[in-house]
Amino acid sequence: MKRPAVRITDVAALAGVSAGTASKALNNTGQLSQDTRERVRRAAAQLGFTPDVRGRALSSGRTFTVALLTTDSSGRFSIPIMRGVEDVLSAGELATVLCDTRDDPLREQSYLRSMVARGVDGIVVTGRRTEPRPPIDVPLPVVYALAASTDPADASVIVDDAAGAAAAITHLRTLGRTRIAHITGPADHRSAVERAQAMTTLVGEPLFGEWSEQWGRQATDLLLRSHPDVDAITCGSDQIARGVCDRLRELSRAVPAEIAVTGYDNWPVMALASRPPLTSVDLRLEELGRRAAQLLLEAIAGTPHHGVLELPAQLVPRESTLGG
Amino acid sequence: MKRPAVRITDVAALAGVSAGTASKALNNTGQLSQDTRERVRRAAAQLGFTPDVRGRALSSGRTFTVALLTTDSSGRFSIPIMRGVEDVLSAGELATVLCDTRDDPLREQSYLRSMVARGVDGIVVTGRRTEPRPPIDVPLPVVYALAASTDPADASVIVDDAAGAAAAITHLRTLGRTRIAHITGPADHRSAVERAQAMTTLVGEPLFGEWSEQWGRQATDLLLRSHPDVDAITCGSDQIARGVCDRLRELSRAVPAEIAVTGYDNWPVMALASRPPLTSVDLRLEELGRRAAQLLLEAIAGTPHHGVLELPAQLVPRESTLGG
Repeated sequence: MKRPAVRITDVAALAGVSAGTASKALNNTGQLSQDTRERVRRAAAQLGFTPDVRGRALSSGRTFTVALLTTDSSGRFSIPIMRGVEDVLSAGELATVLCDTRDDPLREQSYLRSMVARGVDGIVVTGRRTEPRPPIDVPLPVVYALAASTDPADASVIVDDAAGAAAAITHLRTLGRTRIAHITGPADHRSAVERAQAMTTLVGEPLFGEWSEQWGRQATDLLLRSHPDVDAITCGSDQIARGVCDRLRELSRAVPAEIAVTGYDNWPVMALASRPPLTSVDLRLEELGRRAAQLLLEAIAGTPHHGVLELPAQLVPRESTLGG
Repeated sequence: MKRPAVRITDVAALAGVSAGTASKALNNTGQLSQDTRERVRRAAAQLGFTPDVRGRALSSGRTFTVALLTTDSSGRFSIPIMRGVEDVLSAGELATVLCDTRDDPLREQSYLRSMVARGVDGIVVTGRRTEPRPPIDVPLPVVYALAASTDPADASVIVDDAAGAAAAITHLRTLGRTRIAHITGPADHRSAVERAQAMTTLVGEPLFGEWSEQWGRQATDLLLRSHPDVDAITCGSDQIARGVCDRLRELSRAVPAEIAVTGYDNWPVMALASRPPLTSVDLRLEELGRRAAQLLLEAIAGTPHHGVLELPAQLVPRESTLGG
């Protein structure tokens, strides 16, 4: 099975770029287009090019390994972030080590000691909620994703929830809706509060409750009792919005003809199975993971960022506002 | 911040076990109760005990790193498996490296070369579906989870789907149901076919379609036209079962009084949000991940298993059959 070793120059030739560009593409450094990186990467894969990780590790003092610390590896917010992080790191031939703390502080400490002992090059920290979290105490480059570090000197990448909520409102106003109500999750969740605050043209007060379909159905009844003339309901999650749509259908109130509905999260399982499918706000979590990984690579390369980078959420229009 | 080094004997003393037991617990070897392992692990975490990974690596030739090769790290079947694998390995202070191939054979090859080059101790291979897959070609211990290897000499851990389906039928018969129909996913998916074959007391033929709520609703109409007297509908997934329940409610057919419904997968998002909540078959995927990781640890320790280990799925009864 032993073939002659493939060199970086072979990869460069197949991809039609210089050896320097090929090296940058595979190490995910430099300013290259996504296209070029992908072309080099596929050329490397086709040829079976394998960088000599152990050799590089000895000469550089690096392990080409990055830890991904999650509080919740099974959470639907952690997963796309993890996927984005892994995608960027693997393109640069770095290994991503999964550390699932399960919200246990002892477990988190144990992982951090273990990762420092292993000499990982850096750590991406992510969480299940958007509340800022205390920084971790390690002598390594760190980037926080989704939940920012409370230390402004750290590098964090988060979702711009206010802009996402504002986009939903703008969309509804463009469609001529004016009596817009809001149903959302718990009043002590930052994501519920930030979204509610950005919903500027409300009928009545935001209805805070649970992140569940059941709450969506209940809140619809409460809302229609106090404000029977609403023409749009924005929701803090797709689960809530799905419950709202189900209840409106049971009450024979047409969505969107009478009442338009928007969700939040763009979670396909909910947004697409809803009747009608939901206009929603996509948090672009995979992109958030990518950006966090890129910032970490830059920090490892010696140019750390500081402060909080907010990525815009993106409105995805569907039948629950557009009809059809 | 430098404290005197914590020794394994300190951990053993705090946990109230011998040093040998503490060592076995932390390395996930030997025959110990889950309780003992957990107690030692928490004692180690409390004291800040860190095994000297680099020292061990030098003396043993091992890297104490295992690769988890998934075709789909964001899939809802891969995630609990990943979580189970990571839990067992991290308890033994092994690092789990995430390799998400995204169903791309080139990407899979690239990962495998990279993992071999890094000298990982072994590989767990998992997939999104239950179809057996060709073995990977690496000079390392490998265990397959969910999708078995087509080579019977390999070690695989899979779900016993036939037993899970049979458990649903037994449950319905115990409740006095006799006219039991079956609605499921695509006829070219092994999981749909295996479950359908095990549903032995059918009214009519199994209805094959999609893994979606919409298909559940459509198939309900088809079924009631040809067999208006069914008293139970078993479904190949919770999504299908949720669609069935929704459609039956719209038709004012009471679940379970008139028609009992069972799901499959025990996916909380669907099973609990369904009206009524679904009796379902839990695939115990986290346990499957744990078992795969344990088999891999044994293979790494020099005692590899061969053949396919089938883990029983577990019926979880709820209102869709029990009422209440």
